[in-house]
Amino acid sequence: MNDTTATARAQAAQVRLMAFDVDGVLTDGTLWFTSAGDEMKGFSSTDGHGLKLLREGGIELAIITGRRSRAVALRAENLGIARLHQGVEDKRAVLLEIAGQIGVAPQQCGYMGDDVVDLPILRACGFSATVPEGEALVKQHVHYIAHRPAGRGAVREVCEFILGAQGRLDGLMARYLG
Amino acid sequence: MNDTTATARAQAAQVRLMAFDVDGVLTDGTLWFTSAGDEMKGFSSTDGHGLKLLREGGIELAIITGRRSRAVALRAENLGIARLHQGVEDKRAVLLEIAGQIGVAPQQCGYMGDDVVDLPILRACGFSATVPEGEALVKQHVHYIAHRPAGRGAVREVCEFILGAQGRLDGLMARYLG
Amino acid sequence: MNDTTATARAQAAQVRLMAFDVDGVLTDGTLWFTSAGDEMKGFSSTDGHGLKLLREGGIELAIITGRRSRAVALRAENLGIARLHQGVEDKRAVLLEIAGQIGVAPQQCGYMGDDVVDLPILRACGFSATVPEGEALVKQHVHYIAHRPAGRGAVREVCEFILGAQGRLDGLMARYLG
Amino acid sequence: MNDTTATARAQAAQVRLMAFDVDGVLTDGTLWFTSAGDEMKGFSSTDGHGLKLLREGGIELAIITGRRSRAVALRAENLGIARLHQGVEDKRAVLLEIAGQIGVAPQQCGYMGDDVVDLPILRACGFSATVPEGEALVKQHVHYIAHRPAGRGAVREVCEFILGAQGRLDGLMARYLG
Repeated sequence: MNDTTATARAQAAQVRLMAFDVDGVLTDGTLWFTSAGDEMKGFSSTDGHGLKLLREGGIELAIITGRRSRAVALRAENLGIARLHQGVEDKRAVLLEIAGQIGVAPQQCGYMGDDVVDLPILRACGFSATVPEGEALVKQHVHYIAHRPAGRGAVREVCEFILGAQGRLDGLMARYLG
Repeated sequence: MNDTTATARAQAAQVRLMAFDVDGVLTDGTLWFTSAGDEMKGFSSTDGHGLKLLREGGIELAIITGRRSRAVALRAENLGIARLHQGVEDKRAVLLEIAGQIGVAPQQCGYMGDDVVDLPILRACGFSATVPEGEALVKQHVHYIAHRPAGRGAVREVCEFILGAQGRLDGLMARYLG
Repeated sequence: MNDTTATARAQAAQVRLMAFDVDGVLTDGTLWFTSAGDEMKGFSSTDGHGLKLLREGGIELAIITGRRSRAVALRAENLGIARLHQGVEDKRAVLLEIAGQIGVAPQQCGYMGDDVVDLPILRACGFSATVPEGEALVKQHVHYIAHRPAGRGAVREVCEFILGAQGRLDGLMARYLG
Repeated sequence: MNDTTATARAQAAQVRLMAFDVDGVLTDGTLWFTSAGDEMKGFSSTDGHGLKLLREGGIELAIITGRRSRAVALRAENLGIARLHQGVEDKRAVLLEIAGQIGVAPQQCGYMGDDVVDLPILRACGFSATVPEGEALVKQHVHYIAHRPAGRGAVREVCEFILGAQGRLDGLMARYLG
């Protein structure tokens, strides 16, 4: 384990509230429009299971995104994520407000985002992560860069990284092999 | 042929009932939601032909999945797969029940899945397979890891692997060259 | 130019009627189903321009496919391809019938397909082509294997290969640089 | 910096009006048709932010495309791009007309396109760019070939390249780190 990884693990070990961006993190960043005026989004079943594991590991989950789409609401409902904040201008402020409500310090918050607009919230959190397709400037300022692609495992990888850092991953996995 | 492949072939040679997961196996794992409340799934025409070959080779087919979607029902109908089980909590139990009904032993059952929730059913089967994008823990416990991507040939490859192990592939292919 | 390429060019030089498969050739092979019962297909704008060039080069075009979808009819109309045959059981018979109607010999017909069901029509044509994702058995029996992916340039590449073999490509391209 | 890059930067430094193609540039080139008669297009959230940055950097934006789709109109509205020209036969003429209206010389215009039909407009502009999947003939005639894929960052990369050449990128980025 190099220094960067050791730092990322130490930061991830403290996370009590983990929030995720949507476009480019929970999806591959593609915004789908139909000629009938619908929008569509593609989420990953693999990522979904990671989010469930994270919650089972005792971490509070949130989705905080700048855009607004009913597709996201349907997916959040599907995953049982009640803390869904869409159309957010100031993501950092929203995260810190949630943190305050549940009595969690900024050092115990995590965020995963992909673009430069996410830099303020990423830098305000104790733990920050991005996707392999993330912007170069974002990659320079986060603790952890996932190897699996956005919308296809990047979120799962970060969920397992946090659970591993907290020493809870093996226990959660054991039941599947029991 | 190395030892791993030889074992996989020996196990595949016994398969009489082969069941498949949907998300991440018959699809690439992307769950599509529209703002109008529709869901969509993308299946592979190549995989579809593999499933038809497998049935022509005398293997019983089933689809066993944890989620529930009308898109899967439409595709199963399309492929003529009557044994469709959606919204399944305990996949292993469902598979063993089907096996019992048609008089097939667990050693003659196969399953192809991609995530840790599939481990109990995968380990209960005589033959187990996964996709190249499958979870690391799953890859450690299956007989065969496909090289072609999930939702784009992985299922076809496994169908042909089984037929090859049973010595039926060349015969089924011969008619296309006749 | 090696012998294989020289043969492919010689065969392509004779083509007067070129027919294409849909799933896995004009698309990437993904069959999309929605929970509302719709189907969707994704075609390539790049391939579309290749088909227009081929027709401008004096080649008759046809689409011959085993499945049936209104999405294909819409795309064919879009491209001005009137010879659209969907739900075809015996592709070879359909192609030879069209060839007979327009007075073209089998040696002057071409087909591009991706799966083993296409082998009879591919082997009946003077020129045959497939995609890089095509089945191994198909690749062994065609004159030309495209390098660009199915549904993302493979058809364009084959159209330009035919036009190049017929000495018409540079002339068609010249106007864009005029 | 090699000579090619130096030239591209010098040309990009002069851009006052930047226009983009849709299929294969703002999207990955896939034309989606549904059996219900709808069309769909997939745009990139990353590219969208690049376009916003470019406008904030004082560059006029336009979309000029040969096809026509309501999905494009929805995305353009979303991005606040009023200069939307669909169903265009002569792209060069449309661009030069816009340029004349806003008092910008052809040397101060830029275009990003992917196919041979774009060559006249690309060659009429002071700055021209394409995507990595662009046609070979197009790549031979543009100043800049993006490294990120079409519909997944190619437009963002070109937006940042222009802003960098004009010395405005660091200033626009600084606020995200402030």
